[in-house]
Amino acid sequence: MLDFEFCAPTRFVFSRGAQSRAGELVAACGGTHALVVYGGGSAKRSGLLDQVLSSLKQAGVAYETLGGVRPNPRSDLVYAGVELCRRAGIDFVLAIGGGSAIDTAKAIADGALYDGDFWDFFARKAPLERALPHGCVLTIPAAGSEGSASSVITQERGMLKRGLNSELHRPRFAILNPELTFTLPRHQLACGATDMMAHILERYFTNTPDVALTDELAEALLRAIIDAAPRAMENATDYESHATLMWAGMLAHNNSVGVGREQDWASHQIGHELSALYDCAHGESLSVVFPAWMRYVYRHDVARFVRFAVNVWRVPNDPADPDAVARAGIAATRAFFSSLGMPVSFAELGARAEDIPALAAKVVGGATGHFVRLEPPQIEEILRIACADGGGLCPHLSPKS
Amino acid sequence: MLDFEFCAPTRFVFSRGAQSRAGELVAACGGTHALVVYGGGSAKRSGLLDQVLSSLKQAGVAYETLGGVRPNPRSDLVYAGVELCRRAGIDFVLAIGGGSAIDTAKAIADGALYDGDFWDFFARKAPLERALPHGCVLTIPAAGSEGSASSVITQERGMLKRGLNSELHRPRFAILNPELTFTLPRHQLACGATDMMAHILERYFTNTPDVALTDELAEALLRAIIDAAPRAMENATDYESHATLMWAGMLAHNNSVGVGREQDWASHQIGHELSALYDCAHGESLSVVFPAWMRYVYRHDVARFVRFAVNVWRVPNDPADPDAVARAGIAATRAFFSSLGMPVSFAELGARAEDIPALAAKVVGGATGHFVRLEPPQIEEILRIACADGGGLCPHLSPKS
Repeated sequence: MLDFEFCAPTRFVFSRGAQSRAGELVAACGGTHALVVYGGGSAKRSGLLDQVLSSLKQAGVAYETLGGVRPNPRSDLVYAGVELCRRAGIDFVLAIGGGSAIDTAKAIADGALYDGDFWDFFARKAPLERALPHGCVLTIPAAGSEGSASSVITQERGMLKRGLNSELHRPRFAILNPELTFTLPRHQLACGATDMMAHILERYFTNTPDVALTDELAEALLRAIIDAAPRAMENATDYESHATLMWAGMLAHNNSVGVGREQDWASHQIGHELSALYDCAHGESLSVVFPAWMRYVYRHDVARFVRFAVNVWRVPNDPADPDAVARAGIAATRAFFSSLGMPVSFAELGARAEDIPALAAKVVGGATGHFVRLEPPQIEEILRIACADGGGLCPHLSPKS
Repeated sequence: MLDFEFCAPTRFVFSRGAQSRAGELVAACGGTHALVVYGGGSAKRSGLLDQVLSSLKQAGVAYETLGGVRPNPRSDLVYAGVELCRRAGIDFVLAIGGGSAIDTAKAIADGALYDGDFWDFFARKAPLERALPHGCVLTIPAAGSEGSASSVITQERGMLKRGLNSELHRPRFAILNPELTFTLPRHQLACGATDMMAHILERYFTNTPDVALTDELAEALLRAIIDAAPRAMENATDYESHATLMWAGMLAHNNSVGVGREQDWASHQIGHELSALYDCAHGESLSVVFPAWMRYVYRHDVARFVRFAVNVWRVPNDPADPDAVARAGIAATRAFFSSLGMPVSFAELGARAEDIPALAAKVVGGATGHFVRLEPPQIEEILRIACADGGGLCPHLSPKS
């Protein structure tokens, strides 16, 4: 186990009808003038936006609103929000939505107290030292941004998608009402389940020895998501499965299963390039990349992939053929994503083989991953596995020494 | 799943040598004059107290010290600490030790800003509305007080042992260095493992339906503790098993596995009376009471006890005889405590059958427990099971309707 620091101070209010407490919670954080950031029409149509605004009013909190957040949230809305904060003297940013709205709110909160361009923080040109307090009303269980330290924004100049982790990115509070997710399209639930599983897997595949406790917790979370996701998709009003997904999505990314471990994050990096180029959903990029990544790297640590297969997918262990057990776990992962209706190949995503060299070259810093370090040639190989649609296992990677 | 609120804002600094950061962490919380609360000679002899004091000095934090915390911490030292805080103008309370030192520090922090008797809070005569900030350097993995909202103090007038949960009881920071636990006596590690398992079990046995996610997490934690405890006891310098116990002990009681569930806590209530009367260790009272409680209540929900047996103890499932599977899980729990050298009967604890009616009558409020509500006659039956040393299962309790 590696040394670590962990501080996850967000107040989670998990209950039916909790959106009516937004005003009280903003006021308790000292907010007097809030910027409410949200996406498209669904928050308006469902009446949620009105409920939140009326709760703010009741608590004596003034507000401005900023709608129009899109998936893979972009810098334009962040710049608009920062400008609005400065002009109106905003002291609290409140997101209504999923990861895109929350990540936008975080970036706005970063920029509002900074004289320069908020992108300086994401481009690592300046350290993030202060930010406005922010909170959220979650409507899409997926990104885990409601409890995480991360924000991911796409800069429109060059379509660069970059993430920034900071303790200042932990929301002061998060309102979690599973009923708000009853109206989500099935595909959005599937993308969310994929995303949360990916957040766990990025932490699970590690070279750090002696991490049995967080292994156990990660496997427990994965099993709960695998069990709940199809039920939530089948039954739009099944409170329990929606509640399980909502809480699991938070735990998947607040780093409680990542403490003390080296983490990988190659699949996210590669996926970011796919969604930047094709504007596909974040979850769709992950369901394509992760199984391919697994097939490329598993021989680096077959024992870990055997553990994954046995504990998460209940593949019967076979000490005589660990390779087959490991591969069965990878196949189960891919088949599960597919069963949710997620794309698992380039063809299903609408990606093109000819883009592979450019995609691989674009990955930040030229290399990625910690479980196995990947340079562009290796990234290309992974993308070719994804492209081959169920194609061969890479025969070149040798076991770790 | 029940509605819930969860806020666990403690900053955990988990690393070798982390005690040298105490001063910096106190100062970051605005502390300028700290009261350092510790137990007996071990913190002095080991040099830990000096390391912490010198770290405070380096950070420009003045300090007073208050030693002498005993297991099952008492009100006398709390009164002394409150008096010292008022006299010296203390603005931060820092505990060095296990649950007893931390719980004492919490109660001192409560009393320091209150004109009346701190016991008013524990006796529910006054609501706790403010308290000094506090933090800790953990030396005994057991009580989980380093991340929990609880404090348990024994009032010497009448030897009443009472707990108080409050958000103000969450430490601002907790320094967790597993190496500090290398020198613990084996029996203290065993008591600690028992205590953390009990914290999970009190939450695990519930009537709340649809709690698969927290069930999974609780079982994961239990397996990790069951695996690590014997290894930590066998090898005093095995970093990994000590680290696992230290982090698991925190997770066992910060309520991350208790959210959204009705919790039981009967075994703790009954155990408190045993340790108040016989001054036995908290863990010793639990290893005696919990298996007896299980044997008394299991027929209320055999399916839950089957799940416990199969998932935690890997008892082979037998759908034809769930009762036997459930009983095998209870027997495994008792055998495990016993294998750690913990008492599992009245005789091994040094308790007396003739005290049973008085013990049962003394339980707070006259009744306890939520999984099965227990009045004094039922508490007596449980204590008689514990007294019978492996004796019969209570035949009277009928399954839940």
